[in-house]
Amino acid sequence: MSSPPPPEKMPQPTPPPVDSDHSQTQTPLPPPPGYGVTGVLRRWRHEDMLKRVSLGLRALGFLFSLLAFIIMASNKHGPGRNFDEYEEYRYALAIAILSTLYTGLQSWRQIHEMSTGKLIVSGRNMAMIDFFGDQIIAYLLISAASSAVPMTNRMREGADNIFTDSSAACISMEFLAFFILGLSAMLSGYNLVKQTSI
Amino acid sequence: MSSPPPPEKMPQPTPPPVDSDHSQTQTPLPPPPGYGVTGVLRRWRHEDMLKRVSLGLRALGFLFSLLAFIIMASNKHGPGRNFDEYEEYRYALAIAILSTLYTGLQSWRQIHEMSTGKLIVSGRNMAMIDFFGDQIIAYLLISAASSAVPMTNRMREGADNIFTDSSAACISMEFLAFFILGLSAMLSGYNLVKQTSI
Repeated sequence: MSSPPPPEKMPQPTPPPVDSDHSQTQTPLPPPPGYGVTGVLRRWRHEDMLKRVSLGLRALGFLFSLLAFIIMASNKHGPGRNFDEYEEYRYALAIAILSTLYTGLQSWRQIHEMSTGKLIVSGRNMAMIDFFGDQIIAYLLISAASSAVPMTNRMREGADNIFTDSSAACISMEFLAFFILGLSAMLSGYNLVKQTSI
Repeated sequence: MSSPPPPEKMPQPTPPPVDSDHSQTQTPLPPPPGYGVTGVLRRWRHEDMLKRVSLGLRALGFLFSLLAFIIMASNKHGPGRNFDEYEEYRYALAIAILSTLYTGLQSWRQIHEMSTGKLIVSGRNMAMIDFFGDQIIAYLLISAASSAVPMTNRMREGADNIFTDSSAACISMEFLAFFILGLSAMLSGYNLVKQTSI
C-alpha cells in the first residue's frame, strides 16, 4: 500500500475467469470476469449444464403430466364412478392436459434448439415465457391436485375401488409434476434475472 | 505471476463500484454503471423503492390472511354448519393462520429494519428466507383455497346461507393473499439472484 504499487493485488495473481460473482461481495476490486479463453469456455459449460437440467426437469414434468392425463381420462367405470360427474376431476383433467401440452412443447423447443443451435424466440423473451409459463403451470397443478383431494378422501372412507384408486394416482402424478415445475420455475427465474441484468 | 504484472487488466482502470455483473456480457467494454456519487445515490433509491414495495405487498398479504383467518374461525352456525366438520375448511383455517403469522412477522421485521437501520439476519440468508418463505406460503394459500372451492360450490347449489357465504369470503381472501404473496415471491426471487450475484 505504501511506496511501490506493482506488488498490489497479489492475492489474485491470475484472474479467476468465472464465478467472479462469488468473489466480489464487499471487496472493492473485482477481477475481470470471463477473462481469457478458459473463462469463456467455463461459462459456456455452466450455461450448457443449466440448459440440460432445465430440459431434464421439463421432460420429467411432461411424463408426470401425461400419466395424470391418461389415468384421469380413462377413469370411467359406470354411473357414479365416471370422472366427468365431479367438477374437481374435470378440473384435474383439464390442468393435466394443459401441463402436458406446455411441458411437451417446451421440451420439443429445447431439444430443437440444442440440436440445431438456432433460437426460435429471442433469448430475453424466451426467458420471460419460460419463467411465467413454469410458474403459472406450477400454481395450476397444485390447485388442481388440492381441489381433487377432499372428494377422493371422502369416497375412500366409504369404499376403496378402482375409481378412487385411479383418482388418487392422478392426484399423485399432478403433485409430482407440480414439484418438478416448481423447481423448473426457480431455475427459469434465475435465468430471467441473469438475462435482464447482463 | 512472472515479473512485472502492473500493465495487465487495463480495461478497468478505475474499479466500477457495483453492478459489475452488468459489465460482463459479450460486449467487451460497456461504460461502468452506477459510477460516481449519482450512480450510488440512484442505486440506493432503487433499493429503497424495492424494500417499500416488498413491505407494502407483505402488509397487504397480512391483511388478507388475517381476514381469512377471522372469517373462517368464526364460521360456526350450528350442526352441519360448523367449519370444523369439514376437512377442507380446517385446512383453509390452518393455512390462513400460518400465512398471517408469516406475513405479520416479516412485516414487523421489515419495519424494524427500516426504522433502526440494523439487520436482524444477514443479507444473503434473509434473501433466501424471503424467497422460499413467500413461495411456499403462496403455494399453500392456493392449495388451501382450491381445496375448499368444490365443497362450497356443492353446498351453494342446494342453499345459500351465512355458512356458505362466510366460506366463500374466506376462500376469496385466501386467493387475494395468494396473488399478493406470488408477487412478493417474484420480487424476493429477484432480490435473491441480485444478492448472490453482486
